[in-house]
Amino acid sequence: MFFLIGIGLKKENLTFEAQKKIKSCKKIFIDSYTSVFSEGKISELEKLLGKKIFCLQRTDLEENSMKFFAEAKKENIALLVFGNPLTATTHLSILSELKEKKTPFEVIAGISISNFVSYTGLQEYKFGKTVSVVFQRENYSPESFFDSIEKNKSIGLHTLCLLDLDVKEKKFMKINQAIELLEKIEEKRNSKIISESVLVGIARAGSDSMKIKAGNAGELKKFDFGSEPHSLIVCGNLSEDETEFMKIFGNWKGTKNKKISEDLNEISVKKNLVLKVQKYFSLTEKALNKIELKKDLTEKEKLIAEDFLSMAKNYFSDAKHFQKKNDLLNSLACLSYAHAWLDAGIRSGLFDGKEDDNLFTLK
Amino acid sequence: MFFLIGIGLKKENLTFEAQKKIKSCKKIFIDSYTSVFSEGKISELEKLLGKKIFCLQRTDLEENSMKFFAEAKKENIALLVFGNPLTATTHLSILSELKEKKTPFEVIAGISISNFVSYTGLQEYKFGKTVSVVFQRENYSPESFFDSIEKNKSIGLHTLCLLDLDVKEKKFMKINQAIELLEKIEEKRNSKIISESVLVGIARAGSDSMKIKAGNAGELKKFDFGSEPHSLIVCGNLSEDETEFMKIFGNWKGTKNKKISEDLNEISVKKNLVLKVQKYFSLTEKALNKIELKKDLTEKEKLIAEDFLSMAKNYFSDAKHFQKKNDLLNSLACLSYAHAWLDAGIRSGLFDGKEDDNLFTLK
Repeated sequence: MFFLIGIGLKKENLTFEAQKKIKSCKKIFIDSYTSVFSEGKISELEKLLGKKIFCLQRTDLEENSMKFFAEAKKENIALLVFGNPLTATTHLSILSELKEKKTPFEVIAGISISNFVSYTGLQEYKFGKTVSVVFQRENYSPESFFDSIEKNKSIGLHTLCLLDLDVKEKKFMKINQAIELLEKIEEKRNSKIISESVLVGIARAGSDSMKIKAGNAGELKKFDFGSEPHSLIVCGNLSEDETEFMKIFGNWKGTKNKKISEDLNEISVKKNLVLKVQKYFSLTEKALNKIELKKDLTEKEKLIAEDFLSMAKNYFSDAKHFQKKNDLLNSLACLSYAHAWLDAGIRSGLFDGKEDDNLFTLK
Repeated sequence: MFFLIGIGLKKENLTFEAQKKIKSCKKIFIDSYTSVFSEGKISELEKLLGKKIFCLQRTDLEENSMKFFAEAKKENIALLVFGNPLTATTHLSILSELKEKKTPFEVIAGISISNFVSYTGLQEYKFGKTVSVVFQRENYSPESFFDSIEKNKSIGLHTLCLLDLDVKEKKFMKINQAIELLEKIEEKRNSKIISESVLVGIARAGSDSMKIKAGNAGELKKFDFGSEPHSLIVCGNLSEDETEFMKIFGNWKGTKNKKISEDLNEISVKKNLVLKVQKYFSLTEKALNKIELKKDLTEKEKLIAEDFLSMAKNYFSDAKHFQKKNDLLNSLACLSYAHAWLDAGIRSGLFDGKEDDNLFTLK
């Protein structure tokens, strides 16, 4: 049996299932080129498991994998993967080859960086396509990650940016390098997508020394995140909850950027509108139920009073109509207008408001 | 200390870290209203941990949480959460309240349904916003999940649909119910987004009896997925890799839907074009380097031969120009045209091709 096992971001992320399967294996390999632990070393994992782990490089996995895994037809063999398996196509290719060779396999899920995005206060379900921000090399300087960030933002979603690494050369992209690269592309394209976004840096996700900091590009470039691995989030639209929780968990100070503030303001205006409409519906309805025409009105006064009351009722019903159509601004206007007719009736002595100075503007 | 602990989708998903923290706790609660295990029961988890677990309902968590968690200032208290914590805003609210009361807390990540989406052959990083498909009730029949699927698809992304559940009433939405609901909304809106998508059903993610099946709406509605929990994926654009792996791991039979096939065809035409252009560049370049004018040409023949060679070289350089502009169709046409002049020179006896019948069409 061949086990493809996700081992998470540090040795403590190992699951019961993973431990049990690994212990049953005759030989244990690790995919050491696509990722690394956030904390700890492979040697510590070996100690914990009491087993030797053999590192495989890119070419081992992409070209010669069956040389290593052929034995899986008879023996238990494991390939360990940092984080969660199958995110790299290479893993699916290996399984597909095993399937063709009728070698049984099992996949064991592991904790990955995606399991930590909500530690920032952002909502996990609001993330779009994940991108990899890669080192720009002489003959290889793709910018497709920037396109994806733009597309995610166009429908309001956040983007998790994984940062490039070269395990062999011990080269890891830092948050400030990633931001500088994104800013360069932004400038070239005359875009404002990075400068008008809230960014969140996450260093050493899942480790005891995990560091999270939200801010604008300038603030994050200056912040000391410590050692790698680093990741970066480019926020899309922020809900009021997210804005609140980012201040608590993302160490966010809020923003002075006009564009971002306006977006956030927009949200709070909307929420206030909803609350106001709710409140006025309740107040005006109570007022309508409470009001009575004064007993001693003249015929003429009675006609006016009835007219006032009918105006109030009609506008109250219009308010309901607009609310149904989700046109809350018009609904609010109607409620306010309706209430004014009631107050007018009271203050001109046509209505009896039972002295309720909560519902009515008494003289 | 308060521990908010993700326990995954079955008890075997528990991590080293989670086990250790839980064992240190005086009292253990579980959030039992937002989710359930894919496999196994809470009582089995209690047995495994040797501890009693107290179930908390929605109102316990949303309104009275501090009644249960106040002790965390002095004792270790754990709140267990199926899957990964913090995906529900309730969890962030609890932490925020603890922070305010200066009660220390720690969050422990757990395996969630997101860790399994790539088991279908789809690429995890190509997923957009996750939605919840909810039971339509008399006064509550939101369709915002449909909008989100449309938005994700508009930028080519897949959508993971979590299906509604009511733990108290033991009511779980099944894949066929979710599809029927989506189809109803599709019809009402005159959309084709569900009928022209590949869908993937996942039952009991992460359990030993996990079942994955990709197909169109009709195929999936007929398929027996067995017991819940169920989830559904609405695919966006499929890459060639995904198409291939979905057949192997998603138990997909391909599609007869014209629109979907065209989309897939489009992809393979593009990929073939890239490969063809690469191959012809290499061939034509080799041919240009190998060719020589025959020694014994007349003056007139020499002029013709030089003309042929210059045509070939010019078109080869045009091909490079078009390739740079990513106009591969014109690039391919130029390469082919260039190569024809070389072959024409050989077959008319003007060029010496060193008898290479790999590079040239010899007589």
